[in-house]
Amino acid sequence: MSGTEILGYSAGAITSLTFLPQVVKTWKLRSARDVSLMMFIIAAVNEVMWIVYGTLLDNWVIILTNAIVLVMSLTMIFFKLRFS
Amino acid sequence: MSGTEILGYSAGAITSLTFLPQVVKTWKLRSARDVSLMMFIIAAVNEVMWIVYGTLLDNWVIILTNAIVLVMSLTMIFFKLRFS
Repeated sequence: MSGTEILGYSAGAITSLTFLPQVVKTWKLRSARDVSLMMFIIAAVNEVMWIVYGTLLDNWVIILTNAIVLVMSLTMIFFKLRFS
Repeated sequence: MSGTEILGYSAGAITSLTFLPQVVKTWKLRSARDVSLMMFIIAAVNEVMWIVYGTLLDNWVIILTNAIVLVMSLTMIFFKLRFS
């Protein structure tokens, strides 16, 4: 694997975990007052688009990465509605 | 352009704007108490990785998309430190 490929896979792995600190923080705080619901709705719709795109290209990296972010986005939408 | 390509470009355009509602909300509220600083630090570092990756591949879609998200992530880090 080339350095460029390693960088790409590393970047993708980190992307899939971007929302995790927010999920953990909101779970601990039991509050998401200042968090934008619209951001996570846009993210969730966008992840579905990426999953369809990944499916059309048969690219499992795209499918898997975005499936993880989709789960976290849906969790944040649930938290936002539950705790706000 | 094929339907798959149109879907990919549309998904990329929406991805670049994902953080915009949070930036606008935080600017209006003047508060980011419940927002995770770590999320935006991870996002900012991750965008730099993607921009390097895009530069290595000479892929301007990757560079431009992630440059927009980087600006929004840095804005959120600034807001979080300023308003919290």
